[in-house]
Amino acid sequence: MDASRDPYTWRGATGWKQYRMLRPGRGMYYDVKRRLPFYWSDIRDGFTYRAFAATVRMYFVNLLPALAFILDMERKTGGFFGVNECLLSSALAAIVFSLLSCQPLTIVGITGLISLFNYTIYDIAEKQHITDQYPEFLAWVAIWAAITHWIASFGNLCDYMRFITDFSSNAFGMYVGIIYMIKGVEELVDQFTSSTPAAGFLSCVVALCYWATVYGLELLPRTVVLTPTLRKLLSDYAYPICTLFWAGFVHITGPLERADVMRLPISRAFYPTVDRSWVVPFWNLPVKWVFVALPISILLTLLFYYDHNVSSLGAQARQYPLKKPAGFHWDFFLLGCTSFVGGILGIPLPNGLVPQAPVHTDSLTQYKDRLDITREIDEHGNTTERRQKSIVAKSVVETRLSHFLMGLGIIGTMTGPLLIVLHTIPRCLFAGVFFVVGWGSIEGNGMTQKVIFLISERRFIDPINPLLRVARRKIMLFLLLQILGVGFSVAISQTIGAIGFPVIVISLIPLRWVLMPRWFTRRELEVMDALTADSDVVLSSLGGKPEMPEVRLARERDGLRSASGEEGPLDDKENDADSPDERESDTSEAQRLKQLEQSGRNTNAPFTSGKH
Amino acid sequence: MDASRDPYTWRGATGWKQYRMLRPGRGMYYDVKRRLPFYWSDIRDGFTYRAFAATVRMYFVNLLPALAFILDMERKTGGFFGVNECLLSSALAAIVFSLLSCQPLTIVGITGLISLFNYTIYDIAEKQHITDQYPEFLAWVAIWAAITHWIASFGNLCDYMRFITDFSSNAFGMYVGIIYMIKGVEELVDQFTSSTPAAGFLSCVVALCYWATVYGLELLPRTVVLTPTLRKLLSDYAYPICTLFWAGFVHITGPLERADVMRLPISRAFYPTVDRSWVVPFWNLPVKWVFVALPISILLTLLFYYDHNVSSLGAQARQYPLKKPAGFHWDFFLLGCTSFVGGILGIPLPNGLVPQAPVHTDSLTQYKDRLDITREIDEHGNTTERRQKSIVAKSVVETRLSHFLMGLGIIGTMTGPLLIVLHTIPRCLFAGVFFVVGWGSIEGNGMTQKVIFLISERRFIDPINPLLRVARRKIMLFLLLQILGVGFSVAISQTIGAIGFPVIVISLIPLRWVLMPRWFTRRELEVMDALTADSDVVLSSLGGKPEMPEVRLARERDGLRSASGEEGPLDDKENDADSPDERESDTSEAQRLKQLEQSGRNTNAPFTSGKH
Repeated sequence: MDASRDPYTWRGATGWKQYRMLRPGRGMYYDVKRRLPFYWSDIRDGFTYRAFAATVRMYFVNLLPALAFILDMERKTGGFFGVNECLLSSALAAIVFSLLSCQPLTIVGITGLISLFNYTIYDIAEKQHITDQYPEFLAWVAIWAAITHWIASFGNLCDYMRFITDFSSNAFGMYVGIIYMIKGVEELVDQFTSSTPAAGFLSCVVALCYWATVYGLELLPRTVVLTPTLRKLLSDYAYPICTLFWAGFVHITGPLERADVMRLPISRAFYPTVDRSWVVPFWNLPVKWVFVALPISILLTLLFYYDHNVSSLGAQARQYPLKKPAGFHWDFFLLGCTSFVGGILGIPLPNGLVPQAPVHTDSLTQYKDRLDITREIDEHGNTTERRQKSIVAKSVVETRLSHFLMGLGIIGTMTGPLLIVLHTIPRCLFAGVFFVVGWGSIEGNGMTQKVIFLISERRFIDPINPLLRVARRKIMLFLLLQILGVGFSVAISQTIGAIGFPVIVISLIPLRWVLMPRWFTRRELEVMDALTADSDVVLSSLGGKPEMPEVRLARERDGLRSASGEEGPLDDKENDADSPDERESDTSEAQRLKQLEQSGRNTNAPFTSGKH
Repeated sequence: MDASRDPYTWRGATGWKQYRMLRPGRGMYYDVKRRLPFYWSDIRDGFTYRAFAATVRMYFVNLLPALAFILDMERKTGGFFGVNECLLSSALAAIVFSLLSCQPLTIVGITGLISLFNYTIYDIAEKQHITDQYPEFLAWVAIWAAITHWIASFGNLCDYMRFITDFSSNAFGMYVGIIYMIKGVEELVDQFTSSTPAAGFLSCVVALCYWATVYGLELLPRTVVLTPTLRKLLSDYAYPICTLFWAGFVHITGPLERADVMRLPISRAFYPTVDRSWVVPFWNLPVKWVFVALPISILLTLLFYYDHNVSSLGAQARQYPLKKPAGFHWDFFLLGCTSFVGGILGIPLPNGLVPQAPVHTDSLTQYKDRLDITREIDEHGNTTERRQKSIVAKSVVETRLSHFLMGLGIIGTMTGPLLIVLHTIPRCLFAGVFFVVGWGSIEGNGMTQKVIFLISERRFIDPINPLLRVARRKIMLFLLLQILGVGFSVAISQTIGAIGFPVIVISLIPLRWVLMPRWFTRRELEVMDALTADSDVVLSSLGGKPEMPEVRLARERDGLRSASGEEGPLDDKENDADSPDERESDTSEAQRLKQLEQSGRNTNAPFTSGKH
């Protein structure tokens, strides 16, 4: 299949045909048409060990943060949400998306941002003295959101996600990572206010040790100790191993058990946490509040539009050698459906998990250790043979089976006996989970890498590093814009205006596409930024690869220059390097960098761009 | 000065002249004669920034573990020892050794092993119901030990320290590291038994964080971030920075302060901790017990003989480019004097600090970052320029000033106001200190490096690694012998027979010199082992560089072979490589390795052999 010749394109469309809203459902139709032929192979391909390992890993990586967020919501919404809502929401999302979505690699579940949304709405409800009708209000937000989701998906609006570059996705990854770290600290602080100091300090010990052990085990595959199989096994099962160990640790007789750390609260299986039926009586909400829910639902749709689709991009990012086509429109439609159902049932609305999405693809990737033998020649001409290990992503088991089995696992967890097992988990473990996942999102982030580049001593940097070809102040400016975006988002998240943060996050895209090409040269942007997902199979669902604005701008200037038959103005000098020859060498270097990038494996960093 | 032609040698001595004991004081005489001309430069050279940084660093690295050990002793000797005894002992040692010793780089103070010794003697005294006379008994052990020290130093017995290779010094470093880690855990456990669970768990948090932060800061100079000056500054003052921060941390108002962790107990300045005069009435001990003290004192002398001299070797190990001569005999005589005084005063006897000794030399070493530019050629012939940083030890500020100023600092700490400052330090910080110092001794240890080599995947090991030329089972055998030595020492340290452990440690030397050359070929031993200190200026004090037994054995066989005029037996095949040509290339490779070794800086690992 030649994905670059996909029929879903808007190029060359004229008249009314160029307006996306006027051809409703076109994207969804092609999404399904493109993916349906792979449905059988999606199942068949799953009968491998990797799918099993991914199932176990994702069960923990999905469920543990979800439980942690539900604790957060429970605390801040007067106890409306509880473990049963969390499990039902996660199970619903997993079953629907594993069976029906076009992108089964994208793990859908409960995120920190929906938690933020839900408790900010509760804060607003408290201010308006309508906490009695909080569930109904939330249901209406979800209903409106479902409608706006459907409008967006029928209107082919997901196409704009093709404009997502590392500039905005790194900033978003950083934002999410910081929110996770804050949540982890909040969870620990809560131990002190809700329990004894001994429980609080023990919780800190366990959370830190849990973080260190999971991090250490997940790092193993990058080393050369033990055998490749053992390394992989220990890292595949880092979460179960550490969860079992540290959950057991706090139950050891003696001071540990006596400290009596807080554990996960559970309620009767299959019943809502508070005394209500599963269906929220949304018809009881006064009309005034129904319409107040509308603008909030639009903010929620904006959030999901960005968050879910960025997750999908992350799960299909350029470092993974994917072969099966994406389907953003259809999946966003599905997300509207789950939002609708979730709203009616009064459960937290699931959507794509930004830090976890690439973890799923990563677990399904067949990596191979490659031995690189190089000869090293020093100044005196002495040659030494060097052996290095690089990790190469051979292929990805693109299956929906792991996602589905994980969903079944969550349904199983909803039963009484397993709920009791969940109850033995100390709450501080969730703080540890936040630290692992949050730090993963910060450590491998392109922003972190740029900061490290800036504070490093220049003379020790390999000349191959492309950032060396960009002026320091330009890197600083690029970073500053990202930091402003992250900073404003984090700041607003701590206020009652928290639900407005999607606007800030999304505004980074026009900033990148409209203003930044004027402040940076094409070369600078090409070094510092790239499309988060750039394979044709992914971009075909978004109407094909977009032309980067800096390229268009450079071309337009070139056109102007040749038309006027003279050299361009002085400030165009930087573009001299864009002569065909230079461009050629650029490309081959870019390919080389891409290889380097693919060889440097990154376990749980979502938007790592190994390039920088 | 050509140190290899030093007049102090026993080579060629015949008749009664070859017996060391029959020419008393010869070693001490030459030690002083050799070092005295450098006395003025020892002071003058100290007027540099490095000496200041070393003073601050050693003040903390010496005092904090000493305080930690005194807490250990206090707990286990019925409260006889306290902070004042610790300070007096450390100050005495620092002043005497900085002013009078031949090897002012060797930091002398309170070690974990004297703590082990003191409380094991207390255990014995308890069993014999003579705890009333514990101080007197201890005084007699010290008096006898002083006498045996003097016999050993006049009898030139320190000469045998030239036989110390990495085989035994690595094993001893590992043993000390493990004892330190155990002490750290014991200190934390004590928080639970002597204080509240909250204090206990907070102590764990602080100890772990202290460890992580000091470790992180000390690692900085190996990275390329920040500027060279800032990196060095932060690592030079890692202990003061972290001690201030974490000591302040537990005083933050709120749950931290309320947890009320145990702090360092102090008593009236300049007075002994228990109600007694500074002079122990040793004349009151019944004669029977005076003579029981004799065998114990011999064990103590064995311990100090090994421990102190290995510290001196560590402080003058082969990775430091030292120029000034050593003086083992004279220093061991001095150690007898401080033991005598220490015994009379009833303070813990100071001796050389194994993990800290090389830290002092390291702080005084002028390191320089070197930029290594190499070209890397991969299989396809592509060339990449690589820039790496290596750290080169330029020179060592060989001064006695830092040691002396540190001693003055400790005397200052003995005054009332500063004792009160000491009282604010939480005891858990000492657990952190144990972890830092103990782990430093384990992490960089040659044994650890051999284990990592063995569990690494062979194909990724650089072919330059000399261990590749030794059969795996031979490396395992070598390690097994070391592990047995460490294992037995650690095991016996937990029993009442603890005072016997020096016998096990010292028995590793004849094992290495008599038995191992029969089990390993010369080549194998040359790859896996080396003299801990090999420079002529150090070895001249020990009667010159010894001929390694494996070399003598190989020579003898060669001699036999050429005498019989035929090829040696089959099992000699391995020695074929010892033909002159091969030996030549061996040497140049050995030199290369030595360069590699010197460039790989190791901050606080005492007996790291970068070679492996």
